[in-house]
Formats: sequence, C-alpha cells, structure tokens
Amino acid sequence: VVIELINTGSELMLGRVLNTHQQWLCRELADLGHLVTRQVAVADQGLPIQAAVRESLSRADLIITTGGLGPTSDDITRDLIAELLGCRLIEDQNVVGHIARFFAALKRPMPERTRVEAQVPEGAAVFLNAHGTAPGLAIELSPNPFRDDARSSWLVMLPGPPRELRPMFTDSIKPWLQRLFKPDAPLFCRTLRSTGLGESIVQGKLEAPMQRFVNQGLEIGYCARPGQVDVRLAARNPGAAELVADAEKTVREALGRRVFGVENEELEDLIIRWMSEQKQTLAVAESCTGGLLANRLTNVPGASAVLLAGLVVYSNEAKRKFLGVREETLAEHGAVSAAVALEMAAGARERTGATYALSLTGIAGPGGGTLQKPVGTVFIGLAGPEGVASVHHVNPWDRLTFKQVSSQQALDLLRMRIEK
Amino acid sequence: VVIELINTGSELMLGRVLNTHQQWLCRELADLGHLVTRQVAVADQGLPIQAAVRESLSRADLIITTGGLGPTSDDITRDLIAELLGCRLIEDQNVVGHIARFFAALKRPMPERTRVEAQVPEGAAVFLNAHGTAPGLAIELSPNPFRDDARSSWLVMLPGPPRELRPMFTDSIKPWLQRLFKPDAPLFCRTLRSTGLGESIVQGKLEAPMQRFVNQGLEIGYCARPGQVDVRLAARNPGAAELVADAEKTVREALGRRVFGVENEELEDLIIRWMSEQKQTLAVAESCTGGLLANRLTNVPGASAVLLAGLVVYSNEAKRKFLGVREETLAEHGAVSAAVALEMAAGARERTGATYALSLTGIAGPGGGTLQKPVGTVFIGLAGPEGVASVHHVNPWDRLTFKQVSSQQALDLLRMRIEK
Repeated sequence: VVIELINTGSELMLGRVLNTHQQWLCRELADLGHLVTRQVAVADQGLPIQAAVRESLSRADLIITTGGLGPTSDDITRDLIAELLGCRLIEDQNVVGHIARFFAALKRPMPERTRVEAQVPEGAAVFLNAHGTAPGLAIELSPNPFRDDARSSWLVMLPGPPRELRPMFTDSIKPWLQRLFKPDAPLFCRTLRSTGLGESIVQGKLEAPMQRFVNQGLEIGYCARPGQVDVRLAARNPGAAELVADAEKTVREALGRRVFGVENEELEDLIIRWMSEQKQTLAVAESCTGGLLANRLTNVPGASAVLLAGLVVYSNEAKRKFLGVREETLAEHGAVSAAVALEMAAGARERTGATYALSLTGIAGPGGGTLQKPVGTVFIGLAGPEGVASVHHVNPWDRLTFKQVSSQQALDLLRMRIEK
Repeated sequence: VVIELINTGSELMLGRVLNTHQQWLCRELADLGHLVTRQVAVADQGLPIQAAVRESLSRADLIITTGGLGPTSDDITRDLIAELLGCRLIEDQNVVGHIARFFAALKRPMPERTRVEAQVPEGAAVFLNAHGTAPGLAIELSPNPFRDDARSSWLVMLPGPPRELRPMFTDSIKPWLQRLFKPDAPLFCRTLRSTGLGESIVQGKLEAPMQRFVNQGLEIGYCARPGQVDVRLAARNPGAAELVADAEKTVREALGRRVFGVENEELEDLIIRWMSEQKQTLAVAESCTGGLLANRLTNVPGASAVLLAGLVVYSNEAKRKFLGVREETLAEHGAVSAAVALEMAAGARERTGATYALSLTGIAGPGGGTLQKPVGTVFIGLAGPEGVASVHHVNPWDRLTFKQVSSQQALDLLRMRIEK
C-alpha cells in the first residue's frame, strides 16, 4: 500500500507552528503496519494544494490530507479537491444536524458560516467529528484517472485541529482503514537507547555483528541526540518478529550496559522507578546545569517520593552555605574541580539524609573557559552508601546542549551504580 | 524565488521523531522575506529521496535538504544527490582537517568512518560544521537540466542534528542566501508575546481595533503556548513596514503590560538582562516546578551574575532546613499555601542575600490533589526590598504544562515588579 500525507496550512509554511500531524499520523499508520512513503506540506492556496494532491493521486493508493475543512476563509481544501476531481458538493443533512446539536450542547447559536462544513463531495464517506463540527471525508477514485495503471485510490480529508483529528482517526478512520487495507506484512519496530558512545562508535560496534540480520531484511536506523544514540530496528518480512528480537539481543551484547532503555524511556524515568521500588532517596547539587537535572527528575510523576532536594549553587558562597564545601577546597582546586564536585555530593547527601547525591560543577559557556579548564569542562560527583566517586568530561557544545549532555552523564553515573 | 524543503529520515516516516527542521527553517526563511512553497519528507531510501529531489529541481530556484550527511550507513543523501546530478565526490582536505581537529578537541581518536563526511561533490561550496563534523554543501546547477525553462537552481544540503543545522544556517547559510536571493517584495513580520491572557481573550481584545489594519492587508496570526500567546503581524504590500508598525502600536495599547516581549524573547531573557544592568541578584525556591525555574534562568548566558542560588525543596524537611520555613506554618497552612510560599521566598532571600527571591509551592499532579487544593493549585511568593507578596493560580494541566505555566507566572510576577 503506497500512502502519502498532505498537510495544508500557511502557518506551517511561515514556520509559526510545528507540524505534529506528521509524526502522529505516521506513527499511527506504522503501528497498523503501513509506512507513509511521502509527506508534503503546502500553504492554504489553490495552486499548491491542487498540484500536491494531483501528484499524490498519480502515485498513491491512499492519500490523507489534513486541514482546510473549517468555516473560515482560508479553509479551502474541500472545495479545491472537489474541483480537481470534478465532484459536486452537496449539503449532507446528517452533518447539518450534527453541527446544530454541537452548538446546542454549548448553548450557543450556530454561526451561519459553519454550515459550509456540511458541504460534502457527492458519494463521499462521511465521518462525523465528535470533538468539533467539520466532518472527515473519504472519496474512492475507482478507477483513479490520475494513475497510469488505472488502479483505484482513496483520498481521505481530515480536519486540522489535533484534538479533533486524533480521536476521529482513532475511533473512525483506523477501523475503516484496517478493513480496507491489509498491510502486506506486519511491521515490527524496536528502538534501543544508548548513552556514553558517539553515533559513529555505536555503528562501528554494530556493523559486523548486525550484517547477518541486514542480509535477512532488517533495517537499522541511528538517531543521535545530545548524550544519547537511539538504534532503531525494523523489519516486515515473514519472521520479522524473531528477526527484530534476535537483532535486539545482538545489539545488547555489542553495546553492553551502554544500552539503558527502550522506545521512549528516559534515564530519569528508570532512576525514579528503580529508586522508588528500592525506597531509596536522592539529592542533587548543581552548578553548571543550573537546575536542569532536578527539572528532568521532577518531570517524572512520583519523583517527590525520591528527590528530597535539589540545590542550584552557582556562587561559591552558596556552595559553602548550602552544601558545606570548604573554603580551602575552593581556593586550592577552584570551583570547577573533582574535589569540589565530591564535597558538593557529600554535603548534599549529608544535609538531606538521601541515599545518593549527585553533583555537577563545570563551565557551560559561552564565557568563563581557561586553557586548563576550557568551556565544556564538567566534574560530576556521586555520593552513596558505598562512598564517593567522580568523573570528568569535556562537552564543548553550546550552552543548552552542554547542560543536557552533562545532566545525561550525571544520570548515567547514578544508573551504573544502582542498576540491578 | 521558489523554495522547496526536503527532509530525509526514516525516523520521520515511522513517526518516531517530530520534524522540527520544517518549522525552524520555514521561520528563518520567512524572516528573510522568503516563503517556502513546499516541504517534503521521505525515508532514507534511494528511490524516494532521488524522486523528491528530482521533482523539486524541476520547479524550484532553491532546494534545501536536511539529514543524511553523517557517518552511518543510513546517511545516504550526499551520495544519492551526487549520483542524480552526475557529480564526482572528492575528499575535501579542509573538511578532513576540521574533523581531525574536532576529535582532537574532544581528546578522542578520530573514527575512520567519519572520514566519509569529507566526501564533497566536485565544485560544491562547503560550509564547515562548527558544532559537529559533517559540512553543509551547496551546489549550483547552472543551467538546471531538470527545469524546462533552463534557469539555474541551487541545491543546499544541511546536516540533520538541530544543534548542528541551526548555527550553520544562522552563521553561514543565511548571509550567503541574503547575497544570492533578494525577496520579491519585502515581507514584514513582527511577533508580540503576551502572558496572562488566554488566546480567545487576546483575540477578543484585538478583533475590533485591528479590523482597519486587516482591511489594509495585514495578516494576523495567533499562537497559543503554555502561559503565553504570541500575536503575529505580517504584511508584504508596499507600505507594509508602516502598516505593521501601526498595528503593533494598537496591539500594545489593547493588551497593555500583558505584552512582555517581541520575536523570540523569553521572560527569563528580559529578567536576566534587566537584573544584570541594575546589578540586582536573584534566588529561587521551588517545590512543584522542581528546578524548571532555575533551569530556565540558567539557560540565559550571563545568568551566573544574577542567580545566586536555586533551592528545589520537595520535602517539608528540605523547606525547613534550607529555607527556614517554620514547622508551625507547615502544620497550620499545609505545604501548598500562601503562607509557606511567603516564608520560602523570605527565607531564600535572607539566606542568599539576593535582591529578590521567587518561590513556588503547588500540586503538579497527576496525584496529590484535594477538594480544597486540586491538582494544578500553585502559590507563588516574591520577596524583595519592597517587602513580600504572593499570588495564587490554578493551572489544571498535565504535569509538564503545569510546570511550564507556573514558572511563567513566577517570572511574570517578578517582571511586573522590576520592569522599568
């Protein structure tokens, strides 16, 4: 099944909003076993929309458009597509009734202009909008005159607002698609997340051992994020489930403990989960990451059972006052040093009574670097029942990436300690 | 100038990541006066990439591709495009040197496979990657054999990671584009950022006074973000600059001090700037926002001159120990109360000696709400030379949105106090 997605919206082309439909619909379709071959975005203008739809119709079995079905003057997709296909628009009384009931429930008068949303291409399947007024529409072209091979195609139009589109897709379009389009073979996809190795190192470790799976049809993808490389394994041949499972085993053998999670798991999710299970507690003391580490941990529901306190101690005085870092240590080693990281971690642990304490001190930049300690230098300390430890990294990136990578390294240091 | 954007990446088509390049590049180009006519995303596969590039080449003056320039096996864009154009790839010694220096700075050996990134289509302009290894590439097709009109086109290839693409575009590609492509008529676009009012309230206040500008060709767009509504004013007719300037004046009159900034300014940018100019200092004490407020402030370069300390005090004990919140206050009013917010702010100010201190205590959810204090409740305290004050909001959103909106309200409370 060849599927193409067309997103219409001038706000997309002006770069004013993020196109979340693309990811959401592609993922939903992938979960049904279908890969979108091409996604196109164009402005709310006649020529670009008709050109994009015409081209997709010449290639695809299923075309899904989003946006342009509403009541305002820039909602032109329905009219343009009807014109392109030579379809008459007729008022659908079911839709008129739905719109009337929608406004009655809100106890507001029905604006006359919403009535245009009941204009439906003759013969189209209509999907009522449970969270709005504009219906979804599906038109079968059988045969499709835009295709050289004269096969048939379906064109599905969905409303633009995500809170209307998503439930409509899930509740109505998805079951309809499942009846109409059987995936050629089910698609299996597994993402493994690693940290501590660069993208080229990860691939270097995987290339030879993965070759035999690639030969059997496995597709491997790499995605580099700050302080993290995701390895995506996908296959859709018969036997794909076993192929992906075997490949996962090989990736885990090759990367060892550098693999920390699967799918969308973050390091902070694992740490909060493990520590709450073990009834362990945590304190963090941050200089250069400025609260990002505490922020990441507290993004996880239930973090309050684990994180006792976070101390953001930019100034030397705050390091002394809130963590008991000694004047002499600061004078002798400087604030950015292993010695200070260790005293920060030990001080945070002692003053909060937490099972573990993490600390970071470094130079986020853009200013403040020296020859010995360039921008990007970071010392990370960990204090726990087993004693204290520190690591040293150089992350010479921009300020925000530095913060992200450094917080990732700190979480990983703790993970390596507490992982079962 | 006809511009098309091609994003390559199987992870996009599998719906595994959001395509942030589209918004970012479209916005940057719009700010230069250029509208992207079409954006296309395809998987990292030979046929779809070559088909998309070939089609764009038949229509566009400028084609920008993202992704597929890295060292791994799915990085195939450069090779495919060279093949399509019949260009030889040759090793660029400047790029080899850049890659070697990049790994030397990291004190890591240069992985042999990164050397492939130095393969450059013969005759291409090369933009070194200040934040990575793969360079940007620009090829002129003069004349462009894919166009019927035999005009020339430029094809620009950018690396996929956003933290490499963005500075490369800003520092190298943008000035280069400005020399090469003059916009047909200048596009004037101005974004005003407001906080404290919902999107429909903002639109309600603006609709009547803005009508006369709309009649003259002004386009108004609204973008609702957590705790923030952006109003976008755009025009490209003759006289557009004055039209947009007059419209801005009217928006500012209608929204008053709810407008806090323009374009990409964040509340934390303004606060760090104003406070450093005034040589004022700040401390923050956070419960429910868990470090997000400190994190936002420390995202701003130069924050270390302003922010003395941030205390993330989830537990009652931490509130007592690090901020001196009294046992009786906690017992009498509960941790989520105006009284505790005020003591947190006063304690943070006193213990750090900062000019101002902000505090937050609330219920981020999903659990922990009560009938009197539902999930979303937040109390924000401010202590300064003028005394202490607190505000109370209910932000009944998901956990991350709650944190973002609450931190926005805290920054706004401080802004209203210190704004000149």
